[in-house]
Amino acid sequence: MENFTIDNPVKIHFGKDIIKALPESIRKYGKRVLFLYGKESIKRSGLYDQVVNLLIDFEVYEYSGIKSNPIIEDVDAAAKLGREKSVDVILAVGGGSVIDSAKLIAAAIPVEHKAWEFMNGNQVPKKAIPIIDILTLAATGSETNMFAVIQNQETKEKIGWGSPLVFPKESFLDPQLTYTVSPEYTAFGIIDLVAHALEAYFGKGESPLADRVIYGIIDEAMDIGMATVNNPENYDLRARVMYAALLALNGTTSHGRAYADWGVHAIGHELSLLYDLPHGLTLAIAYPAWLRLQADRIPKRIIELGTALFGDKNVKDTIMGFENFFAELGSPLRLSQLGFGEKEKAEIVSQMKNNKLSGYHHKLNDDDYEKLVDLMM
Amino acid sequence: MENFTIDNPVKIHFGKDIIKALPESIRKYGKRVLFLYGKESIKRSGLYDQVVNLLIDFEVYEYSGIKSNPIIEDVDAAAKLGREKSVDVILAVGGGSVIDSAKLIAAAIPVEHKAWEFMNGNQVPKKAIPIIDILTLAATGSETNMFAVIQNQETKEKIGWGSPLVFPKESFLDPQLTYTVSPEYTAFGIIDLVAHALEAYFGKGESPLADRVIYGIIDEAMDIGMATVNNPENYDLRARVMYAALLALNGTTSHGRAYADWGVHAIGHELSLLYDLPHGLTLAIAYPAWLRLQADRIPKRIIELGTALFGDKNVKDTIMGFENFFAELGSPLRLSQLGFGEKEKAEIVSQMKNNKLSGYHHKLNDDDYEKLVDLMM
Repeated sequence: MENFTIDNPVKIHFGKDIIKALPESIRKYGKRVLFLYGKESIKRSGLYDQVVNLLIDFEVYEYSGIKSNPIIEDVDAAAKLGREKSVDVILAVGGGSVIDSAKLIAAAIPVEHKAWEFMNGNQVPKKAIPIIDILTLAATGSETNMFAVIQNQETKEKIGWGSPLVFPKESFLDPQLTYTVSPEYTAFGIIDLVAHALEAYFGKGESPLADRVIYGIIDEAMDIGMATVNNPENYDLRARVMYAALLALNGTTSHGRAYADWGVHAIGHELSLLYDLPHGLTLAIAYPAWLRLQADRIPKRIIELGTALFGDKNVKDTIMGFENFFAELGSPLRLSQLGFGEKEKAEIVSQMKNNKLSGYHHKLNDDDYEKLVDLMM
Repeated sequence: MENFTIDNPVKIHFGKDIIKALPESIRKYGKRVLFLYGKESIKRSGLYDQVVNLLIDFEVYEYSGIKSNPIIEDVDAAAKLGREKSVDVILAVGGGSVIDSAKLIAAAIPVEHKAWEFMNGNQVPKKAIPIIDILTLAATGSETNMFAVIQNQETKEKIGWGSPLVFPKESFLDPQLTYTVSPEYTAFGIIDLVAHALEAYFGKGESPLADRVIYGIIDEAMDIGMATVNNPENYDLRARVMYAALLALNGTTSHGRAYADWGVHAIGHELSLLYDLPHGLTLAIAYPAWLRLQADRIPKRIIELGTALFGDKNVKDTIMGFENFFAELGSPLRLSQLGFGEKEKAEIVSQMKNNKLSGYHHKLNDDDYEKLVDLMM
């Protein structure tokens, strides 16, 4: 076991109709609220009206239009609004893209420089505006951690960033709010949470009990994934997926490890950056390819996983186990299914090389990129 | 799934030699330290000298002699010392008994009344002195939660209490500090952590992923329990037990539930109160008896557990699975093995009736007590 730290101060309110307690939570931080959300979906679902009613006693400044692959321009624009209006607290309503954006906005409001200066490491935040969020998509775990992934079209980067200052103070998770998520995005969320568990599994450090938690999360996802896609308004299924997504990225799966790998997410982010693909879809393509690349390098670790999950005692069946699950959920498994050819292949490899893309534990190098993209085709 | 809240602000430093960072942590809270510990064991192990060296820049007031079944008299005496010396922070060095005591002392220092007034619910704390702890025994999980169990010889009660104000601020968990724990107490610690997982399992609310975490914790304990007892200075084994004890009571196993049951702990506490028995030993006797009592009432739940853990598809084999594990660890399984007879049996039943002992979910009543004690004999 490696030395590690547990430090997760987020308060999670989980369950039916818990957003009634929202005003009480916001009031702890102030009167002036930056209300951040994405597209029209919260208006269609009625959540927008619900939130507006709950915010009746507050001064509310809205910023909407956060994209599902969130961009730095929105972060800067929302931070500008927050700064001008001297907001006390950010209310982020949405999925990972909105909450990730809120984290960077929270750090950017108190400063004059561009938010990307945090992302590229030139600046470190000294303070941040408190964040409260209402989660509407079970997937990224952003509601329970201090990390954000944002993309920059100008520098052609989509990268992760984090600071203990931007942990949400309180997150509201009502499974009913995910009833309106489409079958496709429900599936992508489930693939994402499985991928999070795997990134920890392939991190640095042996932690058998954390591994058992990982097996539990993936078993759970496999048990209920299809049923949830097919029964969008089943409370219990939606609750189980929402909790699985939280447990997959609240830190537990990395206890006893120095760090998780995140190499496959890096690949996925490149694909989203170049072609605006949904995050979960990129992972359904990238994870099996990455496992094939690693098959001869870390066979024991892959077989251990396959044995726990599928009773399969070989690498090939283990990888197929994941592919079958992702395909059953309705996801493409290969870039060729998206109509990608030699042109895109060259673009992706070149982009990987430029960004020196790698996992933290299992390092990727220039030779790997071509192989990986071949395996994704 | 039931509605639930996650709110655990404890910062855990886990690993080899992490206590070097202690002064930095204490300094955040002040200069005047109440240094609380138990018996001579930390002097024998050398930890006492280590801590004294780390505290060289602080004003330190020692209170020692906390018993392994901690009593309210020590809490009041230590709180008096802390009040007189206007301490800024409590440093608790020891196992659950010392950390539990620290929690109540932390709440009692700022007030004039007796600490038991909190335990019996007459008073609710409005503030508390911050607590930092160094854990020396993997068992109770007190290092990661807001609960304490203290006994009162006068009122003949040994009960639990908790307040969000008394979460430790930071806990230092170095597995090396458990090398000197005796085989007997190592075993009792492992039994305790298994019992904690079971109390959540038998709580109110279906939470399949939390159940999977529970299976993982118990599997882990069964995998490494005997090896740890036999290899007291194996870092990795000690680390795994220490982490399992933490995960068993940091809240995770109760996610998705309204509350855990705690009925068996209540029984165990009565036995410790009456006969000063080690906590883990009382659980090794009480849990199988409780499962036998519940066999016809909740067979499905018990079989589900047995199937996951032992592949056993019946109640009897499931209970025997636990008994075999506890016996292998060297624990007695029956009160008769301790030389208890009719006299003690009557005392225990009477005490159970007086204290209206019950779990939260599976209620115990007067008729159950005699049956339970019979099953424990």
